Amino acid sequence: MNRHEKAGPKKSSGDAVALDLAAAPLDADSQAYFAKCEEKLGFVPNVLKAYAFDLAKLKTFIAMADDLMLAPSGLSKLERELIAVAVSSANHCHYCLVAHSAAVRKYSKDPKLADTIVANYRAADLDERTRAMLDFAWKMTVEPWGIEEADRARLRTAGFTDRDIWDIAAVAGFFNMSNRVANATDMRPNDEYYSMGR
Amino acid sequence: MNRHEKAGPKKSSGDAVALDLAAAPLDADSQAYFAKCEEKLGFVPNVLKAYAFDLAKLKTFIAMADDLMLAPSGLSKLERELIAVAVSSANHCHYCLVAHSAAVRKYSKDPKLADTIVANYRAADLDERTRAMLDFAWKMTVEPWGIEEADRARLRTAGFTDRDIWDIAAVAGFFNMSNRVANATDMRPNDEYYSMGR
Amino acid sequence: MNRHEKAGPKKSSGDAVALDLAAAPLDADSQAYFAKCEEKLGFVPNVLKAYAFDLAKLKTFIAMADDLMLAPSGLSKLERELIAVAVSSANHCHYCLVAHSAAVRKYSKDPKLADTIVANYRAADLDERTRAMLDFAWKMTVEPWGIEEADRARLRTAGFTDRDIWDIAAVAGFFNMSNRVANATDMRPNDEYYSMGR
Amino acid sequence: MNRHEKAGPKKSSGDAVALDLAAAPLDADSQAYFAKCEEKLGFVPNVLKAYAFDLAKLKTFIAMADDLMLAPSGLSKLERELIAVAVSSANHCHYCLVAHSAAVRKYSKDPKLADTIVANYRAADLDERTRAMLDFAWKMTVEPWGIEEADRARLRTAGFTDRDIWDIAAVAGFFNMSNRVANATDMRPNDEYYSMGR
Amino acid sequence: MNRHEKAGPKKSSGDAVALDLAAAPLDADSQAYFAKCEEKLGFVPNVLKAYAFDLAKLKTFIAMADDLMLAPSGLSKLERELIAVAVSSANHCHYCLVAHSAAVRKYSKDPKLADTIVANYRAADLDERTRAMLDFAWKMTVEPWGIEEADRARLRTAGFTDRDIWDIAAVAGFFNMSNRVANATDMRPNDEYYSMGR
Amino acid sequence: MNRHEKAGPKKSSGDAVALDLAAAPLDADSQAYFAKCEEKLGFVPNVLKAYAFDLAKLKTFIAMADDLMLAPSGLSKLERELIAVAVSSANHCHYCLVAHSAAVRKYSKDPKLADTIVANYRAADLDERTRAMLDFAWKMTVEPWGIEEADRARLRTAGFTDRDIWDIAAVAGFFNMSNRVANATDMRPNDEYYSMGR
Repeated sequence: MNRHEKAGPKKSSGDAVALDLAAAPLDADSQAYFAKCEEKLGFVPNVLKAYAFDLAKLKTFIAMADDLMLAPSGLSKLERELIAVAVSSANHCHYCLVAHSAAVRKYSKDPKLADTIVANYRAADLDERTRAMLDFAWKMTVEPWGIEEADRARLRTAGFTDRDIWDIAAVAGFFNMSNRVANATDMRPNDEYYSMGR
Repeated sequence: MNRHEKAGPKKSSGDAVALDLAAAPLDADSQAYFAKCEEKLGFVPNVLKAYAFDLAKLKTFIAMADDLMLAPSGLSKLERELIAVAVSSANHCHYCLVAHSAAVRKYSKDPKLADTIVANYRAADLDERTRAMLDFAWKMTVEPWGIEEADRARLRTAGFTDRDIWDIAAVAGFFNMSNRVANATDMRPNDEYYSMGR
Repeated sequence: MNRHEKAGPKKSSGDAVALDLAAAPLDADSQAYFAKCEEKLGFVPNVLKAYAFDLAKLKTFIAMADDLMLAPSGLSKLERELIAVAVSSANHCHYCLVAHSAAVRKYSKDPKLADTIVANYRAADLDERTRAMLDFAWKMTVEPWGIEEADRARLRTAGFTDRDIWDIAAVAGFFNMSNRVANATDMRPNDEYYSMGR
Repeated sequence: MNRHEKAGPKKSSGDAVALDLAAAPLDADSQAYFAKCEEKLGFVPNVLKAYAFDLAKLKTFIAMADDLMLAPSGLSKLERELIAVAVSSANHCHYCLVAHSAAVRKYSKDPKLADTIVANYRAADLDERTRAMLDFAWKMTVEPWGIEEADRARLRTAGFTDRDIWDIAAVAGFFNMSNRVANATDMRPNDEYYSMGR
Repeated sequence: MNRHEKAGPKKSSGDAVALDLAAAPLDADSQAYFAKCEEKLGFVPNVLKAYAFDLAKLKTFIAMADDLMLAPSGLSKLERELIAVAVSSANHCHYCLVAHSAAVRKYSKDPKLADTIVANYRAADLDERTRAMLDFAWKMTVEPWGIEEADRARLRTAGFTDRDIWDIAAVAGFFNMSNRVANATDMRPNDEYYSMGR
Repeated sequence: MNRHEKAGPKKSSGDAVALDLAAAPLDADSQAYFAKCEEKLGFVPNVLKAYAFDLAKLKTFIAMADDLMLAPSGLSKLERELIAVAVSSANHCHYCLVAHSAAVRKYSKDPKLADTIVANYRAADLDERTRAMLDFAWKMTVEPWGIEEADRARLRTAGFTDRDIWDIAAVAGFFNMSNRVANATDMRPNDEYYSMGR
């Protein structure tokens, strides 16, 4: 007997999560967004299908995720995805590790880097800037109460501006949220993610 | 010598965070939102001032926070604030404990309840529904990788629908994000919060 | 259904703890001590009512607590209460956080300081001496096996004498005891504590 | 170079702790107590020498320790010493493990039992009552915020009265204090303890 | 600057570990073993190159690893590799996650299963037998002192014999060793492992 | 009721472990090895009896253990036993603490040193070399993912060669394995170990 058998009849939220939430009818904006996903990725990420039971929730999630991961920043898109994967490794989040290691492969063209960050970012050949960034994100994740001025100072020494520090904090914070939403709802990555960019 | 003295000349981000981020000019929507805060609360929460260096970030934060905490849900506003405080207690988040225990006081008219949840929700006189909800939020916070079907099943037994479970997960997830952004940036609660509702 | 309903008929140990312990008749000394509490505080702290089932235990507890918190020391009474609250925050002790944050308010006249230490002492504007003291108390609490000469050396550098170090250790140790007795017996703070000094 | 060499000239507090605290002149009561130790044990325990820089502290410590460990109780003296050792094992307290495993040997005449509890009480051949008692003491030690009515209920099922539960909590609490005072001051067991009762 | 640049001139132990250990001349048996690796895998695993500075150590490692992972057992080879990956996930061991997830792909022909176990075995669609086996291996890894008769009883209920339980314990124990040797020496997986079986 | 009573009829694996595994007939080599144990120690260690259900497993275990603990190394035999005991203290392994503290007594002729390492190696009077070695072994045990070049560098500064570092890692790794096999199978030390060398 496996999880899917236990889950009974196919849920309206399909393979996305272990909750039975009826999908809301998409409005034009959401349809366009999903169509763009199909076009660019070949599929709609399950995290979006999971949020699609409520368009307001879907849209606030997309707005925040896209701002954090795609808007102009002193952090490259790859750096932001590295934070996503390192945080998700600390939290053992299946959905985010699979989906965002695919993004690391896409931006870095380096599948070995992606698998290394999934396992333990300390084992990767990182420059000091990237290492300092991931040390900060890891500490935020496992001991958030202990972050202090000295931790921010180390980031400044590694060349990050205060705005960059905000962005590191915001991205690391965001994945501490979505890791937990994913774990709490048993969110399942789309099959396509596993082999993307390999 | 204290933190403020160490921080040097007054920052553009004022008393809100330990990062030097120049506030962006507010657009009409943001001005209106801040004006409504002044009217309702008597002040603009520092978390919003902190995000105000970038209007896109400010707006996505407001949209998500307001949807989670104020939109219709099977969870009452008080229940959502109880989750906020229990999660923030696990993460020892100064900003969120001060701001959201004020919200618990506002909705519950019970300052003792608020202080108890700040300390240890297990010590509060809670009905089984609320207790199950906070146990789930606590486990999501401290051991997110361990959440399983049995944890969701306990919520269903306590009377929560699958949609309610989503909302518990989403609120608990959100404060695991904002706790960490606050801790990472040394976010400071407005003075007014400490005594609101006492 | 709440805890008090579950507890059945009112216990002899009243609202103090979740154990049914018949109060012993107070002797003259104990009566005088309780009377002084009523006079000074307006009530007898529940921790004393909890111990009152056995006069020998009540007296040894009072003797040790009063010596540690009130006798002459290189640590001010406020400093000792700050240790009490920081340790109780690490241990999530409801009784001690409520009772001793009231004491911090009393000695400091600063309710915001008290609420900050309850949440996370690292977020407070502390001078280096106080910060070193609370770092030592926190480490004693969460990783007592790891305390070493280097930790004591840091206290000496911050201006503490060896006698002061003893007092820090003794106060932090004491609240690691009373936090656990309180948590183990579900000790409940007197209602009056919540608003004292606000 | 070892710790003693680092410590410089012999301290007034002798071999007892890594703090330089001048011993206070003993009064008649304290002299009598120390004499009784010499008579019964053959030496004065270093914990008492450590406290002897201040007679008030020495006496409150002795009063509490003797009440908890020697006064009438539903717990046998051996049971109280088993709690002492199990708590000290969780906290890796050198002083208390050495001194109180000697006490377990004395009361049980079973050196193997003592060494087993030092290592891991779960490996000992314990009846259900003792096992429930030590499970409670261990949880109080490592996760005090999580103790609940269900934990107390298990003790009642194992045959403990509410008064017994108090005593378990008080003894386990006490060693969480003295373990930390010992670790924080580098308290060193008297040489005699190591071989007593073997 | 990256790790390899920091490491200076190419080490005799090559890309295998961050220690400078001169390879010993292989004897006939070892040459044959390495030749068989080349034939079957296309390369000699770096863990073997790491041990090759000392033939006795190399041979005892190979003997134990091959007995545990390849000899007849009530556990299938895939089950043993699942234990290897789950334990390595708890320990965040880069070398073992990369090498043994390749083995899971080889035996299961299911790359998604492998990536799921790397992330969090609780998210995989496992039957009860496999789930019980991995729960036991995880607990052995993160809380070995807490394993008890009840844990072994759950394995027996899931259909495992006492001999199977030994094998689960031995394999989980072995990877708790090799994870740590790999982390302690910065052992690096052969490039070939990353894409094997995808 | 105790563990032995629960275990039912005497098992073929005797007092060694809580698993029912029929001993295999020993071959000449194994008989000779056991005879040597009887001669040197006066008994066959239970860990060997536990492995004796399968001669291949018995021999690979003996080969690895003897190579690590007895073969030429830059680490003395005492140093290797100190690592064994410190690791076993972190893991609360009853079997290994009892058996290897006996070995520390044998090599050091210092029972107090042995008991101190069992409790907390930080409390022992160690030179800097030994302390650095045990700090590395402890970190490998409790936070293996965090070991880095800086940790190896500290060992080199303390005088260890890269080969010595391998040996520290290998011995600490080995006891992280055997601690877990012992805990998982409830392995029981031979009675003789408790008093050997006292």
